[in-house]
Amino acid sequence: MTLDDLDTPAVIIDLDLMEKNIRDMAAHCKKLGIPLRVHTKSHKIPEIAHRQIAAGAVGVACQKLGDAEVMVAAGIHDVLVPYNIVGRKKTERLTRLAKRARMTVAVDSEATARGISEAADNCRVNVLIELDTGGRRCGAQSPEAALDLAKKIAALPGLSFEGVMTYPSRMEAKDFLAKTVGLIRGAGIPVNTVSGGGTGHEHMAKDLGLTETRSGSYVWEGLSRIGNSDHLHESRCPLRVLVTVVSVPTPERAILDGGMKTFASYPPKPYGRIIEHPDAKIYGMSVEHGHVDTSGCSHRFSVGERLSVIPLHQEMCLNLHDECYGYRNGKIEIIWQVAGRGKVK
Amino acid sequence: MTLDDLDTPAVIIDLDLMEKNIRDMAAHCKKLGIPLRVHTKSHKIPEIAHRQIAAGAVGVACQKLGDAEVMVAAGIHDVLVPYNIVGRKKTERLTRLAKRARMTVAVDSEATARGISEAADNCRVNVLIELDTGGRRCGAQSPEAALDLAKKIAALPGLSFEGVMTYPSRMEAKDFLAKTVGLIRGAGIPVNTVSGGGTGHEHMAKDLGLTETRSGSYVWEGLSRIGNSDHLHESRCPLRVLVTVVSVPTPERAILDGGMKTFASYPPKPYGRIIEHPDAKIYGMSVEHGHVDTSGCSHRFSVGERLSVIPLHQEMCLNLHDECYGYRNGKIEIIWQVAGRGKVK
Repeated sequence: MTLDDLDTPAVIIDLDLMEKNIRDMAAHCKKLGIPLRVHTKSHKIPEIAHRQIAAGAVGVACQKLGDAEVMVAAGIHDVLVPYNIVGRKKTERLTRLAKRARMTVAVDSEATARGISEAADNCRVNVLIELDTGGRRCGAQSPEAALDLAKKIAALPGLSFEGVMTYPSRMEAKDFLAKTVGLIRGAGIPVNTVSGGGTGHEHMAKDLGLTETRSGSYVWEGLSRIGNSDHLHESRCPLRVLVTVVSVPTPERAILDGGMKTFASYPPKPYGRIIEHPDAKIYGMSVEHGHVDTSGCSHRFSVGERLSVIPLHQEMCLNLHDECYGYRNGKIEIIWQVAGRGKVK
Repeated sequence: MTLDDLDTPAVIIDLDLMEKNIRDMAAHCKKLGIPLRVHTKSHKIPEIAHRQIAAGAVGVACQKLGDAEVMVAAGIHDVLVPYNIVGRKKTERLTRLAKRARMTVAVDSEATARGISEAADNCRVNVLIELDTGGRRCGAQSPEAALDLAKKIAALPGLSFEGVMTYPSRMEAKDFLAKTVGLIRGAGIPVNTVSGGGTGHEHMAKDLGLTETRSGSYVWEGLSRIGNSDHLHESRCPLRVLVTVVSVPTPERAILDGGMKTFASYPPKPYGRIIEHPDAKIYGMSVEHGHVDTSGCSHRFSVGERLSVIPLHQEMCLNLHDECYGYRNGKIEIIWQVAGRGKVK
């Protein structure tokens, strides 16, 4: 089975390039001396996570409990869920997982910690305190607030206080992190983990005093984040969407058989890069159509022609699809189910 | 089972209100004297389509063949796919469907029409010519080009030329439509169907000479499209996302357990309306978190609190979920699988 046998739209993955990205980040973190925890939200595919671990990662991070269940069921034994797990249904799912794998979660309130403790029956859940070091999402607002919460966590049954986490890693976080760790250790509570994150932020880890760095998007983007479509390139981006030209209504316009429900792309950013004809620009998307301005391109497009597009939002794109196709030298080598897709709970 | 029993995030549907929207649009089109063809892309749930047909719709429109397969398998017998079906795999799927249901497709090129004809084996596929009357997507560019294509379609085996379609219905399209229909009829080719579309555009149908109007989003938005979150209101929008507050890091900020992978919302537009506290504004979303500015709201949010949010992009939101929950008076009455979700081919 080759790429030519696939109907479109189809998400395809250049396996050589994906493996290179996995190797490169593993080598990068090894050289930096910082353990790498891979974030599976970028792909939601257990076998890719296993390959990342085989390359040297210490474990995975999953943003939702449903993703964690998928990874544990696939035999992954060290999972961080950097997310406040709230509500009895979820805390029971978490503690069931904690009997099968080393589970760590982030909390930023006593209410969340207490809920997990109450559900922890014959198991231990490792807990990090999330710190809001400028990301303005979740997180304790000060080192003092974190110390107060650490004392409460340390006293709650079923929980192991493990340390702190933040996102993203930024040099501005240095004082906040150092002061928090100092205060907690000063209170006689060990801090084993200081977790930071963000593809492209690994080099700050040592300066920030991190014990691990969480990176995810490097699988699709290489060693640094891609902010706009100018940097999408087939030499670094293994995830593409195979599409068909379904209409060429004018010499300046071609219409693709994938739109927002295929690409998850949205205005006003550019939508992606057409590998075969980068001078043809995707200028708009409706729900199921991609609109291409071909005026700057000498190629004459025709109905039925197939193209490969690197989407701007690879993670969001893959999250729309039930399966994807890994290929090497044009041959389909793997059909992967996107096992964590839709696990929003 | 009540709403309180659901874990979050969960897409919930107020059935009374959805049924009201279905009844209202059916009555509106009946009063206007224009047959209504319902677009299932808004929900991708066969049972909702059946309810729309029971209320008076003449059939459905499906944007992708995969959606059409889901609807035909659920017993729906009149399906328009207003999309150029290109490639042998798809044309064979189309002609298989044409043996089980009345299938109509839109084409805008001889290449597309010829491909369908070649696959049409012991069946007939009804064909409309798509006209680009200003929407600047697919479509024949002039009445003369449409006439030329109509003659070719009329001569191709396996195809029944049925008429023309455009999107959206606009008064500016009137001359283009009239001239095209006149030219084709003048060539001795009957034009049975003139199809327009767009929720909120039904009232133009008669003036434009349409024989049917395609509307979809009215199921979630009522009789006119909602362009921004100011018009989202619980009196007209039955689709909501039940979420939980997982963090209240500051008195001015609350964090919800749903972000872009739950809501499909994107900047720079507003993200949705929190029914219980509309003065609390969702100001941002990361992949799995919703960020709420609570500074303008007197309510004090707490971890574990549940809220219902009307998303700005209901159709795109529902397309991320495997199932949704229909309720009446707080009780879950139906659990629907989003059967067409992910059918991008």
